[in-house]
Amino acid sequence: MRKPFEVGDLCFGRHPVLDLLRADPKRCLKLYLSRSAEEPFRRRVIAMAKGGGIPVQYVEMSFLDRLAPLSVHQGVVARVAPVTLLDFWEFVEDIPPSPEPLLVVLLDHVKDPQNLGAIVRTAEACGAAGLLLPKRRAALPTGSVVKASAGAVFRVPIVSIVNVARAIGDLQELGFFSVGLDAAGERSLFAGSLPERLLLVIGEESGLSRLAKEHCDEIRKIPMRGKGESLNVSVAASIGMYEWFRARESTS
Amino acid sequence: MRKPFEVGDLCFGRHPVLDLLRADPKRCLKLYLSRSAEEPFRRRVIAMAKGGGIPVQYVEMSFLDRLAPLSVHQGVVARVAPVTLLDFWEFVEDIPPSPEPLLVVLLDHVKDPQNLGAIVRTAEACGAAGLLLPKRRAALPTGSVVKASAGAVFRVPIVSIVNVARAIGDLQELGFFSVGLDAAGERSLFAGSLPERLLLVIGEESGLSRLAKEHCDEIRKIPMRGKGESLNVSVAASIGMYEWFRARESTS
Repeated sequence: MRKPFEVGDLCFGRHPVLDLLRADPKRCLKLYLSRSAEEPFRRRVIAMAKGGGIPVQYVEMSFLDRLAPLSVHQGVVARVAPVTLLDFWEFVEDIPPSPEPLLVVLLDHVKDPQNLGAIVRTAEACGAAGLLLPKRRAALPTGSVVKASAGAVFRVPIVSIVNVARAIGDLQELGFFSVGLDAAGERSLFAGSLPERLLLVIGEESGLSRLAKEHCDEIRKIPMRGKGESLNVSVAASIGMYEWFRARESTS
Repeated sequence: MRKPFEVGDLCFGRHPVLDLLRADPKRCLKLYLSRSAEEPFRRRVIAMAKGGGIPVQYVEMSFLDRLAPLSVHQGVVARVAPVTLLDFWEFVEDIPPSPEPLLVVLLDHVKDPQNLGAIVRTAEACGAAGLLLPKRRAALPTGSVVKASAGAVFRVPIVSIVNVARAIGDLQELGFFSVGLDAAGERSLFAGSLPERLLLVIGEESGLSRLAKEHCDEIRKIPMRGKGESLNVSVAASIGMYEWFRARESTS
C-alpha cells in the first residue's frame, strides 16, 4: 500500500516531511531542501535532520521539480527507505548474551546498491545478527537494494549508525572482536579461526577507511594471486562472512 | 586504437562483418541481420555465423539504425568482444600436465555483466587457469564486463564454448573432477576437500541447468541459513573458487 505523499522512495511537502522526521526519522535517508525555503520551516527541518543524523542537500526549486515531478513538494523532498532501519541501541538491546556465536557486519561506506543487495543476501545466509550502515556516503536500502537482495533486506536487521569508530568501540565493549578486511592486512583471513562473536568490518573496493582501520582489533587480508588489487566488495564481504559461518556450520 | 568500422563493441557493414567472421570469429559475439538482407550475402553470413556458433538475430532496418546510429551498416551489425576469446582446444593445449593443481571455472549461462565481471576478478585472484563461457544465452566480455572486472578479463584466459555438456566431458577426460554448485546438492561445499584438478560449474542464481547437473561428477551446495533460496551468483562462484584456493594457499 502506497502511503499518501510518498511515491516510490520519495516523500514530499512540508507537513508530510515534518511528520516523517517526527514519527520515523530512521526511515528518512536524505533531505533535499530548496535554497529558497522560508523560515521558520527551514530552521525547523534542518534541526530535526541534524538530530536524526540525516544529510541535507540544498538545491534549486527546478531540481525538486525534476526529482519529484507532478508533486506539490513545497520546496522539500525526503528520500525514504522502503525498509525500517533500526537504531544502534535498539539493535544492541536484542543481542543475545555471550557466549552465543554472533556475527555482525559493518559496511564502511559501501556505495553500490547492487553490492549492498548481494551482501545483505549473504548476511542472511550466514545468519548474521545485523548489518550496520553509516548514513553518510553510503548506499542505503532503497528499492534497487531490495531487488538485488532478493528480499533479504526485509529479513536481516539493518542498523543505521552515525559514527563508524563509535559503533566499533561500543561493540567491542559488548564482547565483540572486530576484524577489518583490507589488502594491507598482515594476516590472512584463512590463517586461524575467527572469534565466536565477530564484528566484520568491510570497506569499499579500495579498502577500509583510515578511521575504521585504526579502531579494528585486527586487520586481515584475503589472499590473492594475479595482478588485481582487490575483489568486488560484495565478494570480499561474502568470503569474510562465510569464513566465520563455515567454521560454525561444520562443528554444529 | 579504434579499428575502422568498429565503434565501441560494434562492427558494421557487409565487408567488415565478413572480414571479422573470416579472420577472428571468436571475437564476434552476436550478429544482428536485417530481415530484408539480400542473397547471396544473407546465406553466406548465416553459414559463417553457424560455423562459428554465433547467434543471429533478425531485426528491422530501423532497429539497426538505432543500434549503430550514423553508421553505414548495410543491414548487418556484429557485437564484438573487446577481449580475444580462446577456443576450447587452444585453451586445452596450454593446460599443464597433471599433477599440478588447476582450477577451471565454467559459467553455465550467467547473464548479468556485473556478475560476470566480479567472477573474472575472483578467478584471477584464485589463479584460475581459465573461465569457460557458452556463447548463447550468457553474458560475454563486453565493455561493461571489462569495467566490472577491473581489467581482470585481460589477464584471465576466457574460453568460448559451444556445448556445456561436451566441455565438461572433455575436461573429465583430461583428468578434471567436475563439481557443480547447486542448492539441490546433498553434500556441503565445505564437507571434505576439493580435488586438485577442479572444474567448478556455476549456474545462474536459480542454479545449474539440468544438462550441466547431469554431467558433473558431483553436485555440492553452499550451506545457508534463513529464508533466502540462493546467493548472488558472483558471490556463490567466488565462495566456490576460494574454497579450492584456500586449501592450496595454506599448504603451499
